[in-house]
This record gives sequence, structure tokens and C-alpha cells, in this order.
Amino acid sequence: MAQHQKPVLVIGDKNYSSWSMRPWIAMTAGGIDFEETHVKLRTEETKATILRHSPSGTVPALKLGDVVVPESLAICEWAAENSKTGPLLPVDSVARAACRAASAEMHSGFATLRKECPMDILARETCHPISDACRSDIARIEALWENCRHHFGAGGPYLFGHFTIADAMFAPVVSRFITYGVHLLPESADYVAAASHHPAYQAWVAGAKLQVETGI
Amino acid sequence: MAQHQKPVLVIGDKNYSSWSMRPWIAMTAGGIDFEETHVKLRTEETKATILRHSPSGTVPALKLGDVVVPESLAICEWAAENSKTGPLLPVDSVARAACRAASAEMHSGFATLRKECPMDILARETCHPISDACRSDIARIEALWENCRHHFGAGGPYLFGHFTIADAMFAPVVSRFITYGVHLLPESADYVAAASHHPAYQAWVAGAKLQVETGI
Ligand SMILES: N[C@@H](CCC(=O)N[C@@H](CS)C(=O)NCC(=O)O)C(=O)O
Ligand SMILES: N[C@@H](CCC(=O)N[C@@H](CS)C(=O)NCC(=O)O)C(=O)O
Repeated sequence: MAQHQKPVLVIGDKNYSSWSMRPWIAMTAGGIDFEETHVKLRTEETKATILRHSPSGTVPALKLGDVVVPESLAICEWAAENSKTGPLLPVDSVARAACRAASAEMHSGFATLRKECPMDILARETCHPISDACRSDIARIEALWENCRHHFGAGGPYLFGHFTIADAMFAPVVSRFITYGVHLLPESADYVAAASHHPAYQAWVAGAKLQVETGI
Repeated sequence: MAQHQKPVLVIGDKNYSSWSMRPWIAMTAGGIDFEETHVKLRTEETKATILRHSPSGTVPALKLGDVVVPESLAICEWAAENSKTGPLLPVDSVARAACRAASAEMHSGFATLRKECPMDILARETCHPISDACRSDIARIEALWENCRHHFGAGGPYLFGHFTIADAMFAPVVSRFITYGVHLLPESADYVAAASHHPAYQAWVAGAKLQVETGI
């Protein structure tokens, strides 16, 4: 692509699109200059509109000139390579592998949590029922977070100390834990507090409010 | 970890474990010296044995000293960083992003194909029924392969010309297409032929035969 063209990130509704949130957070945390294209989800035209942007038929999608990069995780890696604010992946090789494992486990896993507790970032539903299968997803996430922070988290409040793509990948989970008032271990609750106060997370929430208020 | 310790890759049965095949192929294609630990799948002890190796409870898992890296995709990225045989990711930044998108789409997608056509690398079942949902997974894979090769495949028979982690991620799909005699576009069939003749693919198949013959 022509290197002077701005990358365009195609995303869904900020209140609901958990997949879109991840790379948007990573690109924002990385100080990357990008344009945003919003596709309204759950309308009759949604599928056709997304397909006009991306042959995979899903958002998010990053347009780099005439090449389309779908897949939140791949866009997070691209953001890490193009970050202007410092590394979004651990500098140590083993920590980096662990960071990618955490990100990949989120990318392909936790289907029950995703289904039973859909992202709805502005909502608060503290009486939401949580099944045993969902509790086991939550327990695995807490163990994974604890393991990352125990081995690699010494340098800061995030999973690998400083902010990385693993935090971007788990941002929607953080939002679900807040929305549904999920009871967590103290260490997990600390992480949720830190992650949800990251400026990029806050900026996404502000964007969600704006979309809801303006009806766009 | 102590840098002189050999990495250990924990895998399932070579005939069946599609997730294990991916990083094994990437590490083998990358000429990386590693030890292999085989966990027999589908026995009463399988879950407990896997959990002794990896807290995520799944294979594959790469042990780097006292750090465990689960997740096939993360292990492929580690293999790319430690390859002795040349790059396992495209050198061009946009191509690399597209390679990671293809890999990530495979990592989290195509659930119907995976379920209806489980990997069984030594079997040949040409009368296997294939549902419409499965056909749409197959069509998406063919479109994705074609898109990669069209944009980036000029330098060789693989998805991005030379062999990359995307080829490793799709190796089990290649094996399914062969096992179930799936009817493919000519370009896809060419790719299946090339990918299934890669030395690392052949070495995995040879290992599957050995496991079946020796009953280990
Ligand atoms: N694995 C993909 C999943 C993306 C995904 O499933 N996106 C949803 C919205 S959050 C989507 O676009 N669905 C299609 C639709 O709503 O028509 C990724 O990581 O980007
Ligand atoms: N997302 C994981 C998935 C791994 C996975 O599901 N592995 C299966 C075997 S192929 C497994 O270990 N299942 C647990 C069991 O058989 O008890 C990865 O990419 O490594």
C-alpha cells in the first residue's frame, strides 16, 4: 500500500462489538493514526455492508490500501509492530510467547462466557444468572491472569506489567465482568480496575456513549 | 529459562490431534531442535495427564523451562521467531499482517468443518456426507487461500510463496480435504498437493503411521 495512506479500521457498534474493541484499543494504546468506519450491527444490511469491506464477512477489519486484514488478533499484532508509544508485546522472548498464548486462548476460547454474558459495555446487570460452564470459563480466565501476572507482571498493573495486546484481547472480558457484576478474586478485581481505567478503554466507553446518545 | 534447555512440545496422537500438528509442523519446518512428549488422547487419564503438563488443559503445549506456552498459534509465532531455516512469516509488513489474519481465522473459525470432518490423517473416506454449513466453511477457506496466493503467493507454491505459519495452521485442513476426498477448485487442489508434500507434513504423517503400527 502507499505508505502515506491512513489505515482504516472497520468496526461494529462500540457498545456491543467485543471483537472490534480489541484492535481499536491496541491501535489507540499504540498511538496509531487511523480512520474509523462504523458498521451498524443487527440490521438487515449489516452482512452486505460488512462484506463490502471484508471478504471474511466480519468486523473488525483493517484496510491497508487494497489489502484487508480481518481478525482482531492479527490487527493487534500489526498494531504492536506499528506502535508509536512503546512495545505492545513483552520484550523478553519467553514472556512474548506467553503473551501470545494468553491472546490466542482468548481468541479461540471462552465460548460460554461470550454467549451467556454478551458485551454490553454501558449496561449494569448484577442479577444475571451464571451457569456452571460459564463459571468454569471465568475460573480459567482468573487462573490465566494470575499466572501471567505472577511470572511476568512485576513492572506494572497489566498482565505483563506494561500494557500489551493481551490486555487489549481481554478488554471485552473486563467489560463483561463489570457489566454482570461477576464476583472475582481480589487479584482479578485489581486487574479489572486497572484495565478499565486505561485511557484507551475509557476512550472506547466514551465512544460507545456517544453512539448511543446520538443514535448513530 | 536456561537457554541451553531443549524446548519440549507436548502433543496428542499424530493421527487425530489437529491442534498439535500445526506447531509441530512449524517447528519442524523451522529446523528447531525440540523434544516431543506424546499424550494419548481419549483415555481416562488424558485430561489429568494434560493438566500435569499445562494449566490450560489442552495440547499442544510448549515448555520453555518453567514457562508453559499453550495455544498452537502462539507456538507457531515462537517457531517463527526461532526458525533456523529462514523466515516463517512474510518479510513484508502488509503480507505479514495478512498471514497472521489467515492464521487467526483458522485458529478461531471453521467449527463446522472441524466437527463434521475430524482429522484422521491416515484414513480415506470418500463417501463422507458434507452438510451445507460445512460446504460454506470450505468455500470460505478456498476464497481465503486464493486471496492469499493472488496477492502474496508469487514466490512459491505456498499461501505466501515460501512456507509460513499460515501453511502450518492450515495443514490439518489440507489433511481433512485429502481424507474426505473433498471436491476442490483446481487452484485449491494444487495447494493441497504442494502443502501435503512439504517435508514437515510428510514427517508428521510418517510419525502417525509409526504410532498406529506400534500402538503407542
Ligand atoms: N475471529 C474474528 C471474529 C469477528 C466477529 O465474529 N465479528 C462479529 C461482530 S462482533 C461479526 O462481524 N459478525 C457478523 C455480523 O454481525 O453479521 C475476529 O477476531 O475478528
Ligand atoms: N486453542 C487450542 C486448542 C487445543 C485443543 O483443543 N486441543 C485438544 C486436542 S486436539 C485437547 O487438548 N483437548 C483436551 C482433551 O482431549 O482432554 C490450541 O490452539 O492449542
